[in-house]
Amino acid sequence: MALVKLIEYEDASPEVRAVYDDIMTSRKVDWVNNFWKALAGDPATLKRTWESVKQVMAPGALDPLTKELIYIAVSVTNNCEYCINSHTASARKAGMTDAQFAELIAVIGMANETNRLVNGYQVEVDGRIAEAARQK
Amino acid sequence: MALVKLIEYEDASPEVRAVYDDIMTSRKVDWVNNFWKALAGDPATLKRTWESVKQVMAPGALDPLTKELIYIAVSVTNNCEYCINSHTASARKAGMTDAQFAELIAVIGMANETNRLVNGYQVEVDGRIAEAARQK
Amino acid sequence: MALVKLIEYEDASPEVRAVYDDIMTSRKVDWVNNFWKALAGDPATLKRTWESVKQVMAPGALDPLTKELIYIAVSVTNNCEYCINSHTASARKAGMTDAQFAELIAVIGMANETNRLVNGYQVEVDGRIAEAARQK
Amino acid sequence: MALVKLIEYEDASPEVRAVYDDIMTSRKVDWVNNFWKALAGDPATLKRTWESVKQVMAPGALDPLTKELIYIAVSVTNNCEYCINSHTASARKAGMTDAQFAELIAVIGMANETNRLVNGYQVEVDGRIAEAARQK
Amino acid sequence: MALVKLIEYEDASPEVRAVYDDIMTSRKVDWVNNFWKALAGDPATLKRTWESVKQVMAPGALDPLTKELIYIAVSVTNNCEYCINSHTASARKAGMTDAQFAELIAVIGMANETNRLVNGYQVEVDGRIAEAARQK
Amino acid sequence: MALVKLIEYEDASPEVRAVYDDIMTSRKVDWVNNFWKALAGDPATLKRTWESVKQVMAPGALDPLTKELIYIAVSVTNNCEYCINSHTASARKAGMTDAQFAELIAVIGMANETNRLVNGYQVEVDGRIAEAARQK
Repeated sequence: MALVKLIEYEDASPEVRAVYDDIMTSRKVDWVNNFWKALAGDPATLKRTWESVKQVMAPGALDPLTKELIYIAVSVTNNCEYCINSHTASARKAGMTDAQFAELIAVIGMANETNRLVNGYQVEVDGRIAEAARQK
Repeated sequence: MALVKLIEYEDASPEVRAVYDDIMTSRKVDWVNNFWKALAGDPATLKRTWESVKQVMAPGALDPLTKELIYIAVSVTNNCEYCINSHTASARKAGMTDAQFAELIAVIGMANETNRLVNGYQVEVDGRIAEAARQK
Repeated sequence: MALVKLIEYEDASPEVRAVYDDIMTSRKVDWVNNFWKALAGDPATLKRTWESVKQVMAPGALDPLTKELIYIAVSVTNNCEYCINSHTASARKAGMTDAQFAELIAVIGMANETNRLVNGYQVEVDGRIAEAARQK
Repeated sequence: MALVKLIEYEDASPEVRAVYDDIMTSRKVDWVNNFWKALAGDPATLKRTWESVKQVMAPGALDPLTKELIYIAVSVTNNCEYCINSHTASARKAGMTDAQFAELIAVIGMANETNRLVNGYQVEVDGRIAEAARQK
Repeated sequence: MALVKLIEYEDASPEVRAVYDDIMTSRKVDWVNNFWKALAGDPATLKRTWESVKQVMAPGALDPLTKELIYIAVSVTNNCEYCINSHTASARKAGMTDAQFAELIAVIGMANETNRLVNGYQVEVDGRIAEAARQK
Repeated sequence: MALVKLIEYEDASPEVRAVYDDIMTSRKVDWVNNFWKALAGDPATLKRTWESVKQVMAPGALDPLTKELIYIAVSVTNNCEYCINSHTASARKAGMTDAQFAELIAVIGMANETNRLVNGYQVEVDGRIAEAARQK
C-alpha cells in the first residue's frame, strides 16, 4: 500500500485535475495510473514530473519505442517493479514484440555482467576508446 | 592500473589469439581493447564472454544501435566509466548522433528519478498495468 | 517470509533479551520489530548493530529527524521496502510533516536523476568545486 | 574528459546564456560549473534540469542545508564523484560543519549496511510499522 | 506474476527440453525452477545462460559453496528477492550452516557500509594497497 | 583528494592512536591505510567501524579468505575502487590465487547478469525454493 493517499480525480484540486486531464489527453486514455495519483499530494512535483516526462519521452531524435526500451533498461537495473511493469506495458503498446522484449532483457543482463567484469579487474579506458567516445 | 596483467596478442596462447582474431574480424578493426586483454588471463571467461556478447549484440529483433543505447543506459545507471566510454564509442560508430545521445541521457536521468519517486511513495502496480505488461 | 526464524522475547536468551530491553527502553515502546528479531539468531550481530544504530542515530550535530530523512534517502535509492517503511514511520514519529516528506522524495528523485546526467556525460569535477568541498 | 563539449558563456546561444545568467544570479556567483556546461549542448534539458533543481532545492518545508545533506546521501550511495563534490561544496557553503558532515557520512554508511541486513534475511514489514509509515 | 509465459516441460520444444534435461541431470533434481521456464521463451538466451552458469559455478579453484556465498553477496547487494531465495536454497543444499549464513550476511552488511564511508570521504587508494592488489 | 584531512599517527589524539595501534597489531603491519586516517576526524566512527570490521572479519564459521571474497563481491557490484583495491590486496595476502580471483570475478559478473534477467521477467520465487531457502 502506498505511503501516501492516492488522489482520485473527483477529489482533486483544479490544479491537479489539469495535469490529470493532460495525461489522459496526451496518452489517449480515460484513466490515470497510481504513480500520478501518489504524486498528486504534492502538486508542484506532479506538474513538474509530468511536464518533464512528456518532454523527455516525446518523439525526437529517438522514437518513442526506443525511449521505452531505455526506460526499461534503467528500471530493470534498479529493480523498480512498478516502473518495469508500467514501461513494459507502454513498450508493448508502442509495438514492442516478444522477440524485442527478449533481446532487450538479454542486453540488459549482459551489460550488468560486463560492467562488473570491468569493475572487478579495474580495467582502464583505452586511449582510442576515450577518443572515439567524445563529441567531435 | 588494472588488477591483472593485460595479455598482448604477441604473448597470447593460441586459444586466446583465436578469440582476439574473431573480435578483430567481427568488428573489422585491427586492435583489441583492454577489456578483452584483462579477461585473457582467464581464457574460459574470455571465450564465454566474447561469444555471449557477440550473440547478444548481433542484429536481431533490435538493431545494433538500439542495443548500444540500452548498454549505455545500464552502464550510466551503474556508473561504469569504462563501459560508458566503450559503448558510447560503439554507438557513435553505429551512427548515433549528438542529438540522439542527448535524448538518451535525458531518458536515463528521468528513469532514475521516477524509479525513486515510485520507491519513495511505495506505489503499487495498477491492475491494468500489470495486465498490459504481460505476454499475451 | 524471512529466511531465518524470528526470535520472540519469550524464546530469547538473556543476551538477546538485554538488547531487546534496551531497544524498548531507548525507544519508549513495548515491542520489538522484525528486523531485530531476525538478527537475534546471531546475537553478536544483533548487539553490534543495535549499539551502532543507537550511536549513529543519537542526537548530535544533526538532529534525529534529519538523520531519519538521510536514512530514507539511502533506503529509497537502494529500494529497501522494509527500511523505507520503518524509517518513514520513525520520521513521522519524530515530527516529519507530509510536506516535508514530499520535499524529501522530490530531492531524492532529483539527485538520482542528476547523478546519471553527470555519469552519462562523464563530467569532471571543477577545480573550484573540489577546493570548496574539502575540509579547511 | 567529458563526453560532450562544455559550452562556455561566450560561445553560448541566448537561450543557454539566459539559463547561465539565472544560475549565477540565483546562486550569487560569477561562474557556471561544468555540469551545466555539459548539459548546454542540449538546451531543452539544460533549462528543464535547472528549473527543476531550482524548484526542488528552494527553501520550503525543509531548509536548504537539509536538502543538500539528502542530495549527498543519494550521491554517496550511488558513488557519483562529481555530485559528492559539488553538493558537499554547497552544503559547506550553506553552513555544514565538519561534525555534521561526519555524522551524515556515518548515517549513510549505517543505512547502507542495514538495508542489506534486511535484504539478506528477507525481513517482512511489521504491520504496525506499515501502519505508522502511512499518511493519516 | 512473471511478464512472460513460463514454459512447462510438456509444452517445450526439443531444444528447450534438452536444456531442461541437462539442468535436471546436472543438479540431480526432477524439476526445473521458474527462472529457466521464464527464459525458455527465448531459447538462445536459455541455452547460453544455462551453459554459462554451469561453467561459472562448476567446482574449480573455488568450491561450489563459496561460489554460492558470492552469488548471495551480489544478490543481497542488488536486492534481488528471487536470487537471494534461490541461491540461499542452493547454499544450504551445498552445506551452508546457519552460522555461516549469519556471518555471510554480516560481511555483506559491513562491506556495503564501508563502501559508502569510502565514497563519502572520497578516500584515495594508498600506493601500497594498489601495489599489493595487483597481479605479480 | 579526500574530502577530509587524513590524520597521521603523529598528529593523532591518544584515542585515535589506540585504534591505530590495534589496527597495526591485529594486522601485523607497521602502517595504517588512508581509510582509517580519513575516519579519524570522527573518532567515535573510527573506533566503532574498526571494532565492527574486526568482529565481522574474524575467523569464525567462515574463514578469512572467504570473507574477503564476499567483501570483494559487494565492492565490485557497488563499484567502490578503494574497497576493490584494498580487499583484493587483503585477499591476496590471505592466499587468494590468480585462478581464484578469476573465478570470483566470473561469479560476480554472472550473478549481476542473472539478477537482471530475473528482474526483467519479474520471475516469482518457486514455492519449493522459498521452502528450501528457509531456516529449519
